[in-house]
Amino acid sequence: MLPGGLRVVTEHVAGARSASVGLWVDVGSRDEPAVGTGAHGAAHFLEHLLFKGTRRRSARAIAEEIDAVGGDLNAFTGKESTCFYAHVLDRDMPLAVDVLGDVVLDAVMATPDVELERDVVLSEIAGRDEDPEDLLADDFDALLFGAHPLGLPVIGTEETVTGMTRDRLADFHACHYVPARSVLAVAGNVVHADVLAAVEAAYGSRLDGPAQPWHRTAGETPATSPVYPPDGRLGVRDEDTEQAHLMLGVPSLRRADPRWPALQVLSTVLGGGMSSRLFQQVREQRGLAYSVYSSTTGYTDAGTLAVYVGCAPERLGAAASVVRDELGDLAAHGITDAELARARGQLRGELVLGLEETSSRMTRLGRRELDHGGLDRATDLASTLERIDGVGAADVAALASELLTGPRAAAVVGPYGDADELPDEVREMVE
Amino acid sequence: MLPGGLRVVTEHVAGARSASVGLWVDVGSRDEPAVGTGAHGAAHFLEHLLFKGTRRRSARAIAEEIDAVGGDLNAFTGKESTCFYAHVLDRDMPLAVDVLGDVVLDAVMATPDVELERDVVLSEIAGRDEDPEDLLADDFDALLFGAHPLGLPVIGTEETVTGMTRDRLADFHACHYVPARSVLAVAGNVVHADVLAAVEAAYGSRLDGPAQPWHRTAGETPATSPVYPPDGRLGVRDEDTEQAHLMLGVPSLRRADPRWPALQVLSTVLGGGMSSRLFQQVREQRGLAYSVYSSTTGYTDAGTLAVYVGCAPERLGAAASVVRDELGDLAAHGITDAELARARGQLRGELVLGLEETSSRMTRLGRRELDHGGLDRATDLASTLERIDGVGAADVAALASELLTGPRAAAVVGPYGDADELPDEVREMVE
Repeated sequence: MLPGGLRVVTEHVAGARSASVGLWVDVGSRDEPAVGTGAHGAAHFLEHLLFKGTRRRSARAIAEEIDAVGGDLNAFTGKESTCFYAHVLDRDMPLAVDVLGDVVLDAVMATPDVELERDVVLSEIAGRDEDPEDLLADDFDALLFGAHPLGLPVIGTEETVTGMTRDRLADFHACHYVPARSVLAVAGNVVHADVLAAVEAAYGSRLDGPAQPWHRTAGETPATSPVYPPDGRLGVRDEDTEQAHLMLGVPSLRRADPRWPALQVLSTVLGGGMSSRLFQQVREQRGLAYSVYSSTTGYTDAGTLAVYVGCAPERLGAAASVVRDELGDLAAHGITDAELARARGQLRGELVLGLEETSSRMTRLGRRELDHGGLDRATDLASTLERIDGVGAADVAALASELLTGPRAAAVVGPYGDADELPDEVREMVE
Repeated sequence: MLPGGLRVVTEHVAGARSASVGLWVDVGSRDEPAVGTGAHGAAHFLEHLLFKGTRRRSARAIAEEIDAVGGDLNAFTGKESTCFYAHVLDRDMPLAVDVLGDVVLDAVMATPDVELERDVVLSEIAGRDEDPEDLLADDFDALLFGAHPLGLPVIGTEETVTGMTRDRLADFHACHYVPARSVLAVAGNVVHADVLAAVEAAYGSRLDGPAQPWHRTAGETPATSPVYPPDGRLGVRDEDTEQAHLMLGVPSLRRADPRWPALQVLSTVLGGGMSSRLFQQVREQRGLAYSVYSSTTGYTDAGTLAVYVGCAPERLGAAASVVRDELGDLAAHGITDAELARARGQLRGELVLGLEETSSRMTRLGRRELDHGGLDRATDLASTLERIDGVGAADVAALASELLTGPRAAAVVGPYGDADELPDEVREMVE
């Protein structure tokens, strides 16, 4: 930990010629209500605005400096965290550290740029509105989390983005984009001392905030945990799409839950690969859909397990029926030993293969520090693999029985005027 | 080269723990007319069908064997090549080689599976139809290449996929999916001798085709090169989208053209990064669009250079006007020395950073062997970097002047009944 509470975590990757540098800020869309009801979308808006210029660099200078060394500079905003990152050749690590610190901690946020980026963000919303899967995911979260901030789309709405003011953005920035809420994660052909030297050269005088790192779980502005709906929810968005898109899911686990690895096994067996139950039953055996899979999301105090199917509208009933049967079977009978062995192998392989890129190592590093906040940093690769191997069929069965027998939420995007026009099988999924 | 004309190329990647294995077949949608007019979409259909089972493995066995080791198994089909690939831990390389050979060379192609996969491919077409950018790219190629096979979508049409027969697929397979048209490319923690041993163990008796590798440029069934339209082309697809999507472009260079690196510099300066002219002028300075970029495509005997913009319909005229001005300026004045230096740095960096993953190395390896067919294999990383550094501003100016002053094609997807409803600036782009 450096002055101001900034944490720096580094991983040396043998054989790499690059460095992935991420400046993570422990802020996301769920923190927006703290600065007023009109702030919805502020974190994502800032992700855009901060690149528009700092006290030392214009937007063009930022772009030119990174492009000139062939680097990649970008950012992504989530519900609980935001990451500003650069992927550069190893020798350019100090430049990446400097530019990212400049952007995140020292942006000008000029009023004309707020107006320009407002239009860009509105374009991005229009793009989301054209993507049925993106709309579906937002609708699903709204059904499950309701009016809780986790239920609102990260990107904001046309209304809140249109009404966003420079003052509100600056307030949100001043409050959240501080060293004490930040983690600099670097993975690649680098050594820790060089990263620290680059940080000190670049951030020096900016590291003057409160000295203790802020942690979401023990923070000064703890967000209220969501309360799930006590009964099934069904939502339909009428769109003139070629396919019907269905997302069905349930509340699952918070990310730090010790049963998280068992949840990953459950999701893998259900819809995690080509040999999963849903892929085999929906696509391979019946040809009902091109795309079918399950996924999990985890937050500090909440989580989801969901199934997606995109298929011809006339096949939605049949697909929903297969999904319902598989969920029922998992809840009642759990998984087989062969499924357990295959799922463990799959998760182990995916984990190791997924860490080949320095960017995924940087992401793992940054998220881990944000999640565990120094309390439990022993989640290295070996212990993660051990936790996967420690999952038993009984753990998965118990979890399936707990999660899959409660109320479900189903969102549909497709050519349906309202829920009454849906096939019976879809309505039955949430009953 | 092995018996049957199969070529095996290997790259050892220090520090990697995985192997990316790709079985490339020198076949794509442009080869389909050879087996009759109803064959459009056959290469992509086969990409699906071959995974449905071989003489030794059911579809489920294929999925289970790869999932059990955490591998990733998939394929992609292009206009001139198809790649079946697996990404696995290094120790599982022999399994990947075995499964891929089995799938590509020894699939059963059972009639009931043709029916099942027909539905899956039709679902995939429906998904494409919901994606305005995908539709746009297909429309653009149709405008530029007309009725030539390069102008047809890889995925086929609802009509040709519905009419596809098992016999036609089997004919196409027998003719094209042979060792002499295949390249096995492996990158990762592997050595060449082990890969050869795995190939011999797995393919043994199958390597009995013609002994000479087939090359597209000198093949027994040379495809006719496309003839570009002599004047500007404008196409509009009326879709009730939130945004207007525009792709404007010109014929460029065949992939083996010595001026290909200069084309990359030109495209980079035009719309290749955050500091590019289009990103700066369209997004940063004017906030007209969220997404704007240029891209190139190269084939054996043809190529394109295109610009994409997605924006609010009321801004399409303004965006088109900026694009037209920038193209005109590049054609008249070329690029500055600062732009040249930055573009060379950007291309160098992207190239090196892009080769961190074993999968991108495998792709580079496979494509290079297909492209150069043993005639010019000296295009290693160092010589590619040298070729980029050898590009001068005058080369780019000459190319810009040649390419950007000829007839252009513009495709639009958006809420426009016909070309008359488009803003004048769009029509003026192709005049």
